[in-house]
Amino acid sequence: MTIETRLDDDWLTWFQQARQDFDQAFAGHLDRLPQTGPAARLYEAVGYSCRAGGKRARPVLVIEAARVCGGTFEQALPAALAVECIHTFSLIHDDLPAMDDDDLRRGKPTNHVVYGQAHAILAGDWLVPHAFALLAANPVPAERVPGLVTALAEGTKDMVVGQAADITGETTATDKQLVAFIHRNKTAALLEACCVLGATAAGAAPQQVDALRKFGGHLGLAFQIADDVLDMTASTEALGKTAGKDAAVNKQTWPAAFGLEASNARARQEYQAAIDALASFGHQADRLRGMAEFVIRRTN
Amino acid sequence: MTIETRLDDDWLTWFQQARQDFDQAFAGHLDRLPQTGPAARLYEAVGYSCRAGGKRARPVLVIEAARVCGGTFEQALPAALAVECIHTFSLIHDDLPAMDDDDLRRGKPTNHVVYGQAHAILAGDWLVPHAFALLAANPVPAERVPGLVTALAEGTKDMVVGQAADITGETTATDKQLVAFIHRNKTAALLEACCVLGATAAGAAPQQVDALRKFGGHLGLAFQIADDVLDMTASTEALGKTAGKDAAVNKQTWPAAFGLEASNARARQEYQAAIDALASFGHQADRLRGMAEFVIRRTN
Repeated sequence: MTIETRLDDDWLTWFQQARQDFDQAFAGHLDRLPQTGPAARLYEAVGYSCRAGGKRARPVLVIEAARVCGGTFEQALPAALAVECIHTFSLIHDDLPAMDDDDLRRGKPTNHVVYGQAHAILAGDWLVPHAFALLAANPVPAERVPGLVTALAEGTKDMVVGQAADITGETTATDKQLVAFIHRNKTAALLEACCVLGATAAGAAPQQVDALRKFGGHLGLAFQIADDVLDMTASTEALGKTAGKDAAVNKQTWPAAFGLEASNARARQEYQAAIDALASFGHQADRLRGMAEFVIRRTN
Repeated sequence: MTIETRLDDDWLTWFQQARQDFDQAFAGHLDRLPQTGPAARLYEAVGYSCRAGGKRARPVLVIEAARVCGGTFEQALPAALAVECIHTFSLIHDDLPAMDDDDLRRGKPTNHVVYGQAHAILAGDWLVPHAFALLAANPVPAERVPGLVTALAEGTKDMVVGQAADITGETTATDKQLVAFIHRNKTAALLEACCVLGATAAGAAPQQVDALRKFGGHLGLAFQIADDVLDMTASTEALGKTAGKDAAVNKQTWPAAFGLEASNARARQEYQAAIDALASFGHQADRLRGMAEFVIRRTN
């Protein structure tokens, strides 16, 4: 299988701009958090991890999914902010000593290293209801809100379920079915939710929502398999987080269960399925196709 | 100030029945969680704390607030379940070693003692999006959902903010303003949210929602002050959780800041303000008045 190159200068320019637009909106949003008062340290901990950067792939996905369905940036932004809050919550809690025990994330000390475990737990705990508050204050018609809340809630629950299976899986033998369960829940579910959120915010027709849901699910699986492969093959410096960690703690990873070659092949297969899901959108969806390509070509 | 006795047999019979009705619905809801599969341990941890009992004051408050506004049990139930999920999440996380480090809750070992810290964190993390999923699947008209989500999200955020201030406050001198901030956020906000949720689910008029919001806020403050007093004066056996803990870890409590006598007086004052807020509901609200009385008369 060959992968068509869509990552041309136009795509890269768009993606950088889309990240930047989101980052600007996110920074403005975070700037409005209280900087003094009895909970100043909590808000600082929230801001620290939210401002730590990252690819912002999830919020860009929300905004682009909305656009291909005829929606605006303004309609998609609350859901995009909400998804990044949920993603950040998951990173803060996953890094805790009781969980994956990571000291480094995006090249910086993790939240609990800087703010202590109590505040790291609470920063994550604050971000989740905040995400739902953002959805409820959405400028889209009220009848779209239940769909938005359901999509984000189910994506978040699945992610937590995946993390629980991931933690339990560290103490058991490598199991192909378990790896698939973990990847589906831990990663693919939230990327799927991103696409559904964007489409729902835009008021898309059910078949558009379904097509984008499929795209997000396959994209998510491709992403997580690629992530496992990177953990095995890339350096800590390139990753901005501890490399080789998965094998060291006996994580259930795709390469551990299926081998490196089969993992790369499956990632490409999921990529193709993601591309196929977008057929009905025509060239409108080229940027999303580029995102799928970006996901399996990335080196960090 | 004297407190009228509404805690007659009729009230007690009603409250026991209301708790039982909620418990039955909650148990049925929890029974539908997966009992096998890779995340079985997570769902078991969730069920363990949800089934641990407690007074169920919050969900009963939701249901009764809905009823005084002309709403039905069915309309209020999703929000009642959601609030108890949020309350349970907060107990699980508050008990963690990095937070209040409690081994005992409602007379049973705390979640992390039984399931380990990782699963206790994740059980809490699962309950929050689950609560919002319940609200979004509400049988009430879609236009009420944004209000429900906002009320629960703001109540939950405030609670987390209060817990953060509570943790930080353990390392500073007793401060009256700080105690008031902590109690307002940590406890009163969610009880206020309960009342708003019930009223909103019932489609109540704005002045009814406001009256119940005030009732919930004063009730919450009365409750937390009484709780502080109990921690100081009752036994571990009577409480079902470690007594005298607050003073031992230098918690910012009402009695520590204001003294025991002033605390009892303030609790009664908040009780009266809660009663006053219900004036426009007439005898319809007698059960709610009884709840306020129950809160300041309780011994555990």
